[in-house]
Amino acid sequence: MTRITMRPLLAACLLVGMGSALATDGAGQPGGMLGFTAAGAAAQQDLEQRFDALLDPAEQREWLKQMAAGPNQVGSPHDKANAEFMLAKFKAWGWDAHIETFSVLYPTPKKVALELQGPHPYTARLREPDVPGDSTPATQPGVLPPYNVYGGDGDVTAPLVYANYGMPDDYKELERRGIDVRGKIVITRYGGGWRGLKPKLAQQHGAVGCLIYSDPHDDGYAAGDAYPQGGWRPADGVQRGSVADMQQYPGDPLTPGIGSTPGAKRLALKDAKTILSIPVLPISYADATPLLAALTGDVAPAGWRGSLPLTYHVGPSTASVRLVVQSDWSQKPVYDVIATLKGSTEPDQWIVRGNHHDGWVFGAWDPLAGNVALLAEAKAIGTLYRQGWRPQRTLVYASWDGEEPGLLGSTEWAETHARELRQKAVLYLNSDTNGRGFLNAGGSHSLQHLVNQVAAGVTDPETKASVLDRMRARMLVAGSAKDAKPQAKENAELAAKGGDVPIGALGSGSDYSAFLEHLGIASLDLGFDGEDDNGGIYHSAYDTFDHYVRFGDPTFQYGVALSKVAGHIVLRTVDASVVPLHFGDFSDTLGRYVEQLHKLTDSTRKDTEQQHQLIDGRAYALVVDPTRPVGPPARDSDVADIRLAPLDQAAEALTQSAQAFEAAYAQRAASGFDLPPERLREVNGLIGRMEQSLTDRAGLPGRPWFQHMIYAPGLLTGYEVKTVPGVREALEARRWDEANQYAKATAKVLDGYRAQLDRITALLEKS
Amino acid sequence: MTRITMRPLLAACLLVGMGSALATDGAGQPGGMLGFTAAGAAAQQDLEQRFDALLDPAEQREWLKQMAAGPNQVGSPHDKANAEFMLAKFKAWGWDAHIETFSVLYPTPKKVALELQGPHPYTARLREPDVPGDSTPATQPGVLPPYNVYGGDGDVTAPLVYANYGMPDDYKELERRGIDVRGKIVITRYGGGWRGLKPKLAQQHGAVGCLIYSDPHDDGYAAGDAYPQGGWRPADGVQRGSVADMQQYPGDPLTPGIGSTPGAKRLALKDAKTILSIPVLPISYADATPLLAALTGDVAPAGWRGSLPLTYHVGPSTASVRLVVQSDWSQKPVYDVIATLKGSTEPDQWIVRGNHHDGWVFGAWDPLAGNVALLAEAKAIGTLYRQGWRPQRTLVYASWDGEEPGLLGSTEWAETHARELRQKAVLYLNSDTNGRGFLNAGGSHSLQHLVNQVAAGVTDPETKASVLDRMRARMLVAGSAKDAKPQAKENAELAAKGGDVPIGALGSGSDYSAFLEHLGIASLDLGFDGEDDNGGIYHSAYDTFDHYVRFGDPTFQYGVALSKVAGHIVLRTVDASVVPLHFGDFSDTLGRYVEQLHKLTDSTRKDTEQQHQLIDGRAYALVVDPTRPVGPPARDSDVADIRLAPLDQAAEALTQSAQAFEAAYAQRAASGFDLPPERLREVNGLIGRMEQSLTDRAGLPGRPWFQHMIYAPGLLTGYEVKTVPGVREALEARRWDEANQYAKATAKVLDGYRAQLDRITALLEKS
Repeated sequence: MTRITMRPLLAACLLVGMGSALATDGAGQPGGMLGFTAAGAAAQQDLEQRFDALLDPAEQREWLKQMAAGPNQVGSPHDKANAEFMLAKFKAWGWDAHIETFSVLYPTPKKVALELQGPHPYTARLREPDVPGDSTPATQPGVLPPYNVYGGDGDVTAPLVYANYGMPDDYKELERRGIDVRGKIVITRYGGGWRGLKPKLAQQHGAVGCLIYSDPHDDGYAAGDAYPQGGWRPADGVQRGSVADMQQYPGDPLTPGIGSTPGAKRLALKDAKTILSIPVLPISYADATPLLAALTGDVAPAGWRGSLPLTYHVGPSTASVRLVVQSDWSQKPVYDVIATLKGSTEPDQWIVRGNHHDGWVFGAWDPLAGNVALLAEAKAIGTLYRQGWRPQRTLVYASWDGEEPGLLGSTEWAETHARELRQKAVLYLNSDTNGRGFLNAGGSHSLQHLVNQVAAGVTDPETKASVLDRMRARMLVAGSAKDAKPQAKENAELAAKGGDVPIGALGSGSDYSAFLEHLGIASLDLGFDGEDDNGGIYHSAYDTFDHYVRFGDPTFQYGVALSKVAGHIVLRTVDASVVPLHFGDFSDTLGRYVEQLHKLTDSTRKDTEQQHQLIDGRAYALVVDPTRPVGPPARDSDVADIRLAPLDQAAEALTQSAQAFEAAYAQRAASGFDLPPERLREVNGLIGRMEQSLTDRAGLPGRPWFQHMIYAPGLLTGYEVKTVPGVREALEARRWDEANQYAKATAKVLDGYRAQLDRITALLEKS
Repeated sequence: MTRITMRPLLAACLLVGMGSALATDGAGQPGGMLGFTAAGAAAQQDLEQRFDALLDPAEQREWLKQMAAGPNQVGSPHDKANAEFMLAKFKAWGWDAHIETFSVLYPTPKKVALELQGPHPYTARLREPDVPGDSTPATQPGVLPPYNVYGGDGDVTAPLVYANYGMPDDYKELERRGIDVRGKIVITRYGGGWRGLKPKLAQQHGAVGCLIYSDPHDDGYAAGDAYPQGGWRPADGVQRGSVADMQQYPGDPLTPGIGSTPGAKRLALKDAKTILSIPVLPISYADATPLLAALTGDVAPAGWRGSLPLTYHVGPSTASVRLVVQSDWSQKPVYDVIATLKGSTEPDQWIVRGNHHDGWVFGAWDPLAGNVALLAEAKAIGTLYRQGWRPQRTLVYASWDGEEPGLLGSTEWAETHARELRQKAVLYLNSDTNGRGFLNAGGSHSLQHLVNQVAAGVTDPETKASVLDRMRARMLVAGSAKDAKPQAKENAELAAKGGDVPIGALGSGSDYSAFLEHLGIASLDLGFDGEDDNGGIYHSAYDTFDHYVRFGDPTFQYGVALSKVAGHIVLRTVDASVVPLHFGDFSDTLGRYVEQLHKLTDSTRKDTEQQHQLIDGRAYALVVDPTRPVGPPARDSDVADIRLAPLDQAAEALTQSAQAFEAAYAQRAASGFDLPPERLREVNGLIGRMEQSLTDRAGLPGRPWFQHMIYAPGLLTGYEVKTVPGVREALEARRWDEANQYAKATAKVLDGYRAQLDRITALLEKS
C-alpha cells in the first residue's frame, strides 16, 4: 500500500565529511559498530559479507515473476498459493514457519456502474483493458473491477461537483463560492492527501457519493510517457485503494483493538466506525473526462486544474450522474506467513521483519518487489544458520496478507499477540514496494544511527558510492532547490552539518502501524526509490512483472541492496551485545519538533491576526469581482493562550539524560561492555522497551487505538505523519484547550521515557 | 503592446487607516492637495467635478467600435483613417492638432510556411479562422498572417528542440542534458519573459530558427473557457508581437537615438543591431501540438510542461521541420496625432499624455480601450477650455502610431523633439490597454503621492469605494497569500503601514520608454485590470470589439474611471502652484532598492558557496540517474568583493535631503506658497527637471540609449523592470567589476539629484 513518493521525509545525505567518514564509524560519527565490542564488530562484518554473498538477483526476479503471475488480492486463489509457496520456502530454508489465518470483513464489488445523464450521456467503462505487449493480461479471470474498499453500497443519482483533491481547504474554497455539496456526487482527483479522506470529507459535507479519478497531471502523461511507451498511467488506468477510515484504527473494521480470531467478538457492520456510508468509486481519466466536461459554474481555482484538455469548472453539473456500488460483504481469510528462528541466548527478545504479499491486482511493484527482498534475506539467513551461525535474539520473518484493504494481516496478528510483543519485540522492520535509486528510510529516531551505520556499509549499485553517501547527496541537492520546502531545507542543513543523515518520521500506509503506533515497538520502514517510474501504475492492473522489469529495477540490484540494508539491520540487532539504539538522535529530533510547535503557534497567531484585519478592514470584500463573487474566508477563531512550557522542559531534560546515557554507553563500549550478564540483560530489556514508554494507553484525541505520543498518521492527512500529534493536530484544528492538555500529557510521557533512560544509564554507570 | 498582467508590480492598497483617511488628504497622509494652496485646491476640486461630469461611457464605446472595425496595424488604411478621425476630433474639441509622420522600417510578411516532415507530416495552418458570433471577421481583407516583426528572413529545415520559455535558465537545463540547439529550430512557449528574448537567445545559442507558441496552460483552456464561450485563447489563436532587440533601443531599428525624419541618416539594414538574423514565427497550439508530439528524448523537466494532452519532451525530433519567413522590408509611415493646449502662464512647462492607436489586428483591448479614455479626457478638457478654463502649463495629448512593432511613433517623436522635451516636459502620462478591476499604476516614485491623492478621490464603479481603497485591498490580500512572492509581501507591508500605497517601477512595453528611460522625464503608466479575461486574445485577431464588450469593460465605466484618474493627474499637474512631486517617496523606495542589492549580493554569495560545495562534494554526480543522465550545473564564478557603500551613502544623504525638502515645502504650503513669482518659477523649473538628474548620458552597460540609472527594462527580462539596473544586472550576470563601477556611477547620479533637491529646498527656505 505504501506509496513512498507521498511521504514527506525522504532522502538523506551529508557531504561535508564524506572524505573523513573513513576515519569514523562510516556514518560521520566517531565510535565503532553500535552495540558491538571491537571483536564482535569484526565478526559481524564477516557475517554480513557472507550474508551478502548469498544474495542472488536472479532469484528475486524469479520469485517476483511467479508471485505476480496472477491476481493476488485478499481471498484470491493466487494469494493463497503465494502464502503456501512462501511457507514451503521458509521451511526448506530451515525456519520454523506456519501460516496464521484470520477471518476479516473484506467487501468485494458485485456491481459497479457510473453514467452521465443529460444531453451528452456517457456510460463509464470502469475496467482496464489489456496493454499491448504486457504478458500479464489485465483482463484475465479473477481480476476484479476497480473499486475502493470499505465505501458504502448505494445507487445514487445527483448532480456532480468538482472538489479538487477533496481536502478540507478545498471545501472552504467551495464554500466561498456558495457551492454546497449536500445531495450531490463529488468528484475528486487523487493526490493532495490520503485517498480515504476524500470520501470521508465528502460524506461529512453531505455528499451522496464520491468519485476519485487519476488526473494525468499527477501521474499520467503530464508526468511522463504513459504505459506501455513509458511507465506512467494510461488513459484507462485506475488507482484502487482502501477508503476505510484508518485514522480511527486500521485492521478488520469489526475487531478494533483485538485479533480477528475465530472466537473474537465482532462489531455489527453498522457499528464499524471505519466504514463509510456513501458509495465511492475510483475511475480513470478516460472515464472522468466526460464528467468533468459536463461541469458548469465557476472556473476552478488555479491550483485545482489538472492536465486534461478542458477548462476545469467547479460545477454543479446540470446533468445528473448515476453511481452504483454493491459489494459482497462476506468474511474473507487472510494468510500471514510467520517464520521464526529462535534466539540462542536471548530468545525472548524478538526482531520482527515484515512485508506484505497481497496486491490490488498482480502487485509486482506493490508489494512483491519488497517481499522478494525479504525472501532473499530469509534464504540467506537460513543458509548461515545451516552453516552454524546462531542468532543471539529471536528472528521473526513475516509476509503479511491483507495489507492493501487496511493493514489487516499485520494488525490482526499484532493485536492477537499484543501482550507477547509488548514483552519481547525490540524492533519491527518493514518494507513494501521497492524501486531504483535512493534509500528512503523512516522510523523511530532512536534507530537513526543504526540506519546510518548500515547504509554507510552498503554499496549503491549504480554509483558505487555508499548508499548513505547517495542519501546525503539527494538531501543536499533537494534542499538547495529554490522552491525547497522548509522540511527539505532543514534536512539539508542537518545533512550538511556532518552528523547523521536524518531519517523521516512514520505516518501510516504500511504494516508498521500496529507495531509502532499501537504497541510502541521501535520501527523502521525501508525502500529504494527516486529513479523509477512507478507512480502511474500504482494500484492498477498494470502493476505487472513486465512493467517492473522495464521501469522498476530491471537488474534486481536494488532488490539485493534492500536485502543488504534490511538484512544488516536485522543481523546487527539480533547479535549486538547491547541493542543498538541511540537516544541522542531521538532527543535532538524531538527538540526540533517542539521548536516546530512554537513556530506553528506563532504563525497561527500571526495569520489569524492578519485574516481578522483583512476581514474587518473589508479587504476581501473590496477585491471581489461582482461578476464572479467569492466570499471572504470564514473567520478563524482567536488563538488562545498556548502553553508549551511542559514540552520545553521535558525536551530539555531528555537532552540532558540522553547525553548522560551516551557518555555512560561510550565508556562501557570502550571497555567491551564488561557488565555482569544479568545486568546486561536488564539493560537490553529496558532498551528494547524504551519506545513503549512513548505510548499512552489513553491514546490520541478521539482515536484511542493510536497510542504513540510522538508519531501518528494525520487525521486530516492520512498517510502523512504528524509528529507530537496530540498537540500539533489540536493546534491545527484550533482546539486550544486540547493542545494545552496534550502538551502536558505528552510531556508526561516524555518524562517517563527519560526516567527509563536514566535507569539504563545508572545500570551502565554502576561499577 | 503593454501586457499589464506580465508586469511585476501592481496592485496597491492600505487598509489600516482606511477609516481615518477621511481626516487626512485621502491618501493616508496629513496635508492638503499636493502643490495647491487651500483656495487653489477647492477650485481644482470643482474643476475636476466639472471634468468628470463631461465623461460619457457611450462615447468611449462608440469610438472603440469605430476604431476597431478594421485591421489597424502600421501601414494599414484603417490605421491612417483612425489618425485622421482623431485629428478631426481634437480640432473640433478646440485643440491645436496635427499629424506628425515618420517613415520607419517595418517589415510585413510576404510568405510564411511551417511543416513537419517525417513519418507524421503536418502542414501548419498559420492563420486564425473566424470565431462564430464575432461581428469582426478575423479573416477579412487586410488582416496579415500571424508574424513576429523584426525576425530575419529564412528558409530553414532542421530538427526541433523544445526550450520551454526560451529563457537563460532553460538553456542551462538543456545543456545539463547534453542538448545543443546549434543548427536546430527551437520551439518555445510564450510566457516566462519577454517574447523578443526567445529568438534572441535561440540565435545566440546557434539555432537556425525559432517558433513561439501559446500553450493553453498559460492563456488557453487551462486558464479559462476559450473564446467564444469564454475570453481565453482558442486553439487557433496566435500571439503576434515584436521581437526587435528593444533592450538595446526601441524605435526604428535604422535610426537609434534620432528621429526618423525625412533627412535623418539611416543605418544599413545589416547594421541595425535590434534586428535578428534567424526566422521567427508565432504559432497557435493547434499548430504546435503535432510538432511537440514529434519530439523524443528526455521528458521535459516538470516546470516545462504545459497543458496539452501529451508528454512534453525536450527533443531533438528525429523528423525535421521546415520554417519559411519572407518579409517585405520596405519603409512604412507612422502617424502620430499631436494635440496641444498652450499654457496660459507657464507655456514652457509641458504635461504630455499619450496612448497608442495602432493594433496588431483590430486592437480593441490593446490599445484602443486606453486610447478612447484619452480621447474622452481630451474632449472634456476641450469643453472646459471653451467654458473659459485656461491651463497654467501646456498640455500635449498624443495618440501614437507604431507602438506594437517597437514603440516607433513615441520614440521617433521623443527623439525628434528631445532637446525641447528635456527643457520643457514635466510629466509623461501613459496608458495602453484598459480593463475592469483595479488601478494598476507604475512610474517615477516622486509621483507616487500624486497618484495616491488622485486615486483616493475617484470612485470605483463596482464597489463604490475609492479606487485607492481597492488598490490597497488588492495589495493586502495578495500579500497575505501563502505563496506570495517577496515583492508582494513587501508591498502588503507598506500598504498596511498606513502610508502611501506603493506604485511599481516601470520596465518597458509601452510608450513611456523614450520619455522616462531615454530622456529622464518623470513618467506614469496607468490602467485598470484584474477582473477581465484579456490574456487569451492578446495580440490576436480575436482582440475585437465584441470580445471587449463581453470580457473587458462592458459598460465602459472603467474607461471612464481611467479618464478620471488620468485626467485629474493631468489637470493637477497643469494647474498646481508647485509641480506636485514628492521626493520622500522616491528616497524611501530607493532605500529599499539598495537594501535589495545587499540581499542579492548576500544570497548570490551564499548560493555560490552552496553550489561549489555540492559540485566539489560530488552531490550532483551522486544524484544522477544513469539511465537519464543530467550533468551538474556549470560552476558559477566566485563572488568578488562587492562594494555598495557609495550607494548606501548616497541613499542616506538623499533621505536627509528629502526630509529637509518636505519640511520646507510643508512650511511654504502652509503659507499658500507665498514666494516671489520668479523664485516659484525657478522652483518649478527645477522640480520639473529633477528626474532628468537621474540620467547619465553614458547610459547603461552596453546600451547607451537607456540613460535612467534607476529604472530600466531588464536585458534578460524584457518588459520587466530592473531597478538600479547598472548594479543589479551586473550582479545577476556576475560581472563584479561592472557592479562596483556602476555602484559608484549610480551614487554619483544620486548625488546630483540630491544637490538639485537641496537647491530647491534652499529656494523654498529663503525668506
